[in-house]
Amino acid sequence: MVTEMMLEKLKEKVCEANKQLLVHDLVTLTWGNVSEIDRESGYVVIKPSGVSYQEMTAADMVVVDLEGRRIEGNKNPSSDTAVHLEIYRAFSDVGGIVHTHSTYATAWAQAGRAIPCYGTTHADYIYGEIPCLRSLTVEEIENDYERNTGLLIVNGLIQMGLSPLCVPAVLCHFHGPFIWGKDGETAVANAVVIEEVAKMAYLTENIGNNPQSAPQQLIDKHYNRKHGSGAYYGQQ
Amino acid sequence: MVTEMMLEKLKEKVCEANKQLLVHDLVTLTWGNVSEIDRESGYVVIKPSGVSYQEMTAADMVVVDLEGRRIEGNKNPSSDTAVHLEIYRAFSDVGGIVHTHSTYATAWAQAGRAIPCYGTTHADYIYGEIPCLRSLTVEEIENDYERNTGLLIVNGLIQMGLSPLCVPAVLCHFHGPFIWGKDGETAVANAVVIEEVAKMAYLTENIGNNPQSAPQQLIDKHYNRKHGSGAYYGQQ
Amino acid sequence: MVTEMMLEKLKEKVCEANKQLLVHDLVTLTWGNVSEIDRESGYVVIKPSGVSYQEMTAADMVVVDLEGRRIEGNKNPSSDTAVHLEIYRAFSDVGGIVHTHSTYATAWAQAGRAIPCYGTTHADYIYGEIPCLRSLTVEEIENDYERNTGLLIVNGLIQMGLSPLCVPAVLCHFHGPFIWGKDGETAVANAVVIEEVAKMAYLTENIGNNPQSAPQQLIDKHYNRKHGSGAYYGQQ
Amino acid sequence: MVTEMMLEKLKEKVCEANKQLLVHDLVTLTWGNVSEIDRESGYVVIKPSGVSYQEMTAADMVVVDLEGRRIEGNKNPSSDTAVHLEIYRAFSDVGGIVHTHSTYATAWAQAGRAIPCYGTTHADYIYGEIPCLRSLTVEEIENDYERNTGLLIVNGLIQMGLSPLCVPAVLCHFHGPFIWGKDGETAVANAVVIEEVAKMAYLTENIGNNPQSAPQQLIDKHYNRKHGSGAYYGQQ
Repeated sequence: MVTEMMLEKLKEKVCEANKQLLVHDLVTLTWGNVSEIDRESGYVVIKPSGVSYQEMTAADMVVVDLEGRRIEGNKNPSSDTAVHLEIYRAFSDVGGIVHTHSTYATAWAQAGRAIPCYGTTHADYIYGEIPCLRSLTVEEIENDYERNTGLLIVNGLIQMGLSPLCVPAVLCHFHGPFIWGKDGETAVANAVVIEEVAKMAYLTENIGNNPQSAPQQLIDKHYNRKHGSGAYYGQQ
Repeated sequence: MVTEMMLEKLKEKVCEANKQLLVHDLVTLTWGNVSEIDRESGYVVIKPSGVSYQEMTAADMVVVDLEGRRIEGNKNPSSDTAVHLEIYRAFSDVGGIVHTHSTYATAWAQAGRAIPCYGTTHADYIYGEIPCLRSLTVEEIENDYERNTGLLIVNGLIQMGLSPLCVPAVLCHFHGPFIWGKDGETAVANAVVIEEVAKMAYLTENIGNNPQSAPQQLIDKHYNRKHGSGAYYGQQ
Repeated sequence: MVTEMMLEKLKEKVCEANKQLLVHDLVTLTWGNVSEIDRESGYVVIKPSGVSYQEMTAADMVVVDLEGRRIEGNKNPSSDTAVHLEIYRAFSDVGGIVHTHSTYATAWAQAGRAIPCYGTTHADYIYGEIPCLRSLTVEEIENDYERNTGLLIVNGLIQMGLSPLCVPAVLCHFHGPFIWGKDGETAVANAVVIEEVAKMAYLTENIGNNPQSAPQQLIDKHYNRKHGSGAYYGQQ
Repeated sequence: MVTEMMLEKLKEKVCEANKQLLVHDLVTLTWGNVSEIDRESGYVVIKPSGVSYQEMTAADMVVVDLEGRRIEGNKNPSSDTAVHLEIYRAFSDVGGIVHTHSTYATAWAQAGRAIPCYGTTHADYIYGEIPCLRSLTVEEIENDYERNTGLLIVNGLIQMGLSPLCVPAVLCHFHGPFIWGKDGETAVANAVVIEEVAKMAYLTENIGNNPQSAPQQLIDKHYNRKHGSGAYYGQQ
């Protein structure tokens, strides 16, 4: 049973994670949102729609259940709430989700291209390329657009055989990145990484020299020294 | 009848909107101006020419009527005042106008190209591409240059059959963007959007992959979820 | 006769102008310098060599005469002092000079290309393209390098028939921009303009569409509305 | 014999040098590290692994000897420590080392290209191009990865006949720059230079005009006026 105090604490965490989008220069105006789930109760705390990061307080956060019913809060939840819910429903190890229109990641999404793994900056956080999913069909756009975006992400990951914590982001064609992690704070850190990696990949290709993906062993080395049982990066 | 108090309030709003150009990094030196109109009186409040955003106060704002006669203020109004007036005279739903030389939007204007709608960031605010108008003729430059710039914008929108609130900006070839909205604050927000969209479109084309405009249904979906009677974005 | 008090005031102005290079993000580490001349005495106040902008005070400024003799100050003057002096000696209407390695202007200099006048942002301040001068010969590099850089600038302007206040900057191939104006403050403003114009021209060419220089009448219109006897921009 | 007080002072210097990476916008999250060596004792002070620059204090710094044994500190040293140690062991004039994933330098590393010397900004600090070393072999990656990275750098410099203080940085293919200097502060300044030079070289090539390396005499002139016995830049 989720206590009132736990929810209050989660609302504070989610509010702070949303404000971090601004600190890391990932959002313009109100173009981004972070949510986090309490897995015991199945309650999701998410940013309210169209509210500015500067003015936002924990009390503005909206609590919904996994069916999208509003449990707490006076405001409308983010218009992207249904996308978040589909991802939480499909992947039990995802604890936090971020959506932004950050500049370089969105440009790759608009170009309809996956971001290749050109080096260790990328491999330190993401195992392999960041996929770009197909555009939605007319039917998927016109009925239940946000839910269909979520289903596209979920089914895309499953069909590609990708583990969501190993590939913590996808690009939606003509739209932008959706990013996740074990909690909201990690998802925001991944959003920072994805934007920087997107910029570096852009520059790498424009430097030319027919750039190649990093060798598989180098990807394995860097990914594994930060993640998994043999990790030796940091203070764990 | 416009009361003195209403005008003072409008001067404060316009002063603040001009300062927001600096906050959003849309202006270098004194290269930009915001105006707003009081439709009841037909009075337009506009930035004084060549005054820095940091030092500007509400008392520096200049009030002119729709014929360009100075009603209040000791300073010269923006040298672009005649452009603003033509737009206000032609389109009664325009309440605020911005002109900047923001970097990416100006680069598209200098290249003489419309900014294609490559994704939902663009479609959330602007319905279709941001047009680039032809260069003025020698005659239009040499006599009444600013007024002719305004007429080019007005006639361009009319000939293209565009509603000014659906397409809240145009690029003037060799010059830069003119942007508007229902009031000055909205026009400044649109100026932020246009600059970001111009940067994303630049990057999208340089990522390559022969980028295409977003599908029409996706544009409709995103534009309509933020605008019009069925809008469900935000807290309205 | 230059009084002590006049010199102190000039040192304060030049110190502040040097600090403005940092405010406008035109310098990295200690890569830039501003000087201003007192025409009555022929004394030039210039930044000391290799001193950081943050720590610099008016008392650190160095006073030299037009032959380069140190008149006042304990520090070595900028290693580029001889460049400044040649420009002051040749052009009596130049009152302040700036040298930076600002990013985009330096990239054009490294590419060995003049910056075309692609629009009104450029035409508002600079009449025509910003020339890029040839590389120095081996002899010019090995003997009196800085003085030869100054002579190259002076002779370049004269041979191209350019008035230094109409074209307030040149690029030195493989090096970067030298910029001037009627005083140090104006020269710094011109340095801001040159960097922004260099960035816009870079972007314009990478947007493609075979960009053309702005029409001559548009250049005349914009340059003349800010400069010369018929100017109507600002509060003059 | 290294006294306790000397070590404390060195830990403060190294902590401050690490924080400077953030001030100069060279690092994202925790992606960079600075070390400095006390040559008398052979002790190296280095950033702890995965600790944020904002929270770091001198007490968090880790002291290791040249064989990598931890002498002082509760935290794990940077995962790149073995790279630093190989460089210190090979080159006695290197006093400080920096590793970053700064954006433009990393993009050149990802593209697998040396950064050409396109101008005097580069020549003022680095004598000739900044080399890009080959990718490690599978064997080098899988066993003792960090030590092999250090050996690649050391052997690369030796084989190219380069003096480490004249060429104070290399790029590791698919990874990023390693940078050094006579102490940690100088190494950080060099890291600032390498990132700016990497950006300028990127822009220079995208401006086109088939850019050439700066003439050898110009490189000699600029390098030597700042370095070596005949230097006349600064206040020495």
